[in-house]
Amino acid sequence: MTGELQTTDVAVIGAGPAGLFAVFQCGMLKMRCHIFDALEMPGGQCTALYPEKPIYDIPGYPRIQAAELIDRLAEQASAFQPVYHLGSPVERVEPLPEGGFKVATAAGKEIHAGAVIIAAGAGAFGPNRPPLDGIEEFEGKSVFYMVRRREDFRGKRVVIAGGGDSAVDWALSLVDIADRVMVVHRRGKFRASPANVAHLEGLSETGRLDLVVPYQLHGLSGTAGQLRQVAVADLDGNVRHLEADALLAFFGLSTNPGPLAQWGLTLERHHLVVEAGTGATSVPGIFAAGDIVAYPGKLKLILTGFAEAAIAAHAAYHHIHPGQALHFEYSTTKGPPTTV
Amino acid sequence: MTGELQTTDVAVIGAGPAGLFAVFQCGMLKMRCHIFDALEMPGGQCTALYPEKPIYDIPGYPRIQAAELIDRLAEQASAFQPVYHLGSPVERVEPLPEGGFKVATAAGKEIHAGAVIIAAGAGAFGPNRPPLDGIEEFEGKSVFYMVRRREDFRGKRVVIAGGGDSAVDWALSLVDIADRVMVVHRRGKFRASPANVAHLEGLSETGRLDLVVPYQLHGLSGTAGQLRQVAVADLDGNVRHLEADALLAFFGLSTNPGPLAQWGLTLERHHLVVEAGTGATSVPGIFAAGDIVAYPGKLKLILTGFAEAAIAAHAAYHHIHPGQALHFEYSTTKGPPTTV
Repeated sequence: MTGELQTTDVAVIGAGPAGLFAVFQCGMLKMRCHIFDALEMPGGQCTALYPEKPIYDIPGYPRIQAAELIDRLAEQASAFQPVYHLGSPVERVEPLPEGGFKVATAAGKEIHAGAVIIAAGAGAFGPNRPPLDGIEEFEGKSVFYMVRRREDFRGKRVVIAGGGDSAVDWALSLVDIADRVMVVHRRGKFRASPANVAHLEGLSETGRLDLVVPYQLHGLSGTAGQLRQVAVADLDGNVRHLEADALLAFFGLSTNPGPLAQWGLTLERHHLVVEAGTGATSVPGIFAAGDIVAYPGKLKLILTGFAEAAIAAHAAYHHIHPGQALHFEYSTTKGPPTTV
Repeated sequence: MTGELQTTDVAVIGAGPAGLFAVFQCGMLKMRCHIFDALEMPGGQCTALYPEKPIYDIPGYPRIQAAELIDRLAEQASAFQPVYHLGSPVERVEPLPEGGFKVATAAGKEIHAGAVIIAAGAGAFGPNRPPLDGIEEFEGKSVFYMVRRREDFRGKRVVIAGGGDSAVDWALSLVDIADRVMVVHRRGKFRASPANVAHLEGLSETGRLDLVVPYQLHGLSGTAGQLRQVAVADLDGNVRHLEADALLAFFGLSTNPGPLAQWGLTLERHHLVVEAGTGATSVPGIFAAGDIVAYPGKLKLILTGFAEAAIAAHAAYHHIHPGQALHFEYSTTKGPPTTV
């Protein structure tokens, strides 16, 4: 495969909050970035898993929706014109003999970078898919593993499968706008907050929604990706057919660190071991920030990921410009961000 | 003096951005706070020194004025109803025999706290005041060391004294709204960005403002706190009198760590030495965050102060509840902040 070769100062792997802010901080230090993500859009878990959920602990935002936070971070980074490679999982990161690194995507793209900042969060992650024949045909059309926009379900007959917080939260949220909500769970008991479970059961008692328990998903039918029926079975194999326009399946996520386990970096239970004051991994020139890192006292908060991104950007600067003092200025002094 | 005694979980010393966010993070961990500051309002340097300056490197805010950031942080912290002690410099922090600390203000107030988080920034700080007879009479009325609101100077004859960035920036900013701007500096050359100095000199050449150089402040006259004239003298002692309504003196700040040097904490060049992963100072139970701290790799950014505040809050929790596992929940899961 012919790869296109581009060069940059810093390759940022992962376009979640920490990765986006790393791009901004690199820009403040006059370093250009390419930023990679396996997902088709920036934001990592914030946009893929809970875009409409409010976050309360971003400093200076008493409340902000995850998707809006990502929009703001992308806007902030955009001052420095990063090059995005979305839907582009990074497969290999290899030191170059002349210094710097070759970053290669699964699709065969190659970028040479002076330093690398890994902000890969929980690593490659995705929903656990129910093992139903032909489910691929419906995915993204009428079978979903997350709610991107609540409005998409207005007036629909929605089957929600699962017994945890996501299933219960979305059942409660969609009951107001869906034509019908049916909650399928293989047990009678839900693993969610007692208040929400009580609310759910109350709605079932008054006939506002259907609890289909204990049942499991059994099969799907429909045409051209559009569901018509969801078949469910009880533990004795008795099958019921639910008329439905959409299925939301919430069976949790499986995560794995992805190919980065092969990049020669020291890992500790799927996390990159870094030095706290620099974000340095075990390979000189590769730094890391955010949920992927481990160091004593690490807190898995978005706001600590921001600080780690700033620290990694400064350390990357010193790696790329060894021995060169950083002429440090506050953003208030040097004025609005501009490109290099 | 009779002190009033109150108790709380955490005493936060310093109400700048790091201190305010420490209050919020303590609240998320169900700890109540009292927060102290020598200044009369929250915000530290942000409100005292540059309330109207935009900041560009707060994550998720492509641009925010310092005063607005403080408003948002105070709003975020307010969910947990902190008790503010403003205009209340803390004089002593002493361990109590039964555990915890006694925090005593200069005015004689005493609070007992289970743990202390010091977020004292640059320490007690204040402007360098020119040694002019009777200047106290004018301070806060027509002599200022900072601009709180640019509008206050509309239509006024303003003498700006100093030769650094602040003097030059404010001369350029106020020339559009003041009746007259006169810049007094004891040298002919300004220590500011070349572009701004060129702009200043250009305005002087076209008569838009007066450069009164090389001159020094010599005396003030006026009545009831209202300036009428500012006297300036050259190096030979020749005196000129400038008709003026206001004097802005920008001779830099002097900072000192204040009484905290006497609290038995390990200092390194006026900074508190802390452990990076906990914010622990050399005294168990006293933690620190923000510009006051030193550890390898420390960056003096507001955003790293936020992360340090979160880290210190978690460490304070473990100090107050030894051996008790922290039931950690994300803000998105547990919903909006509520008081304990």
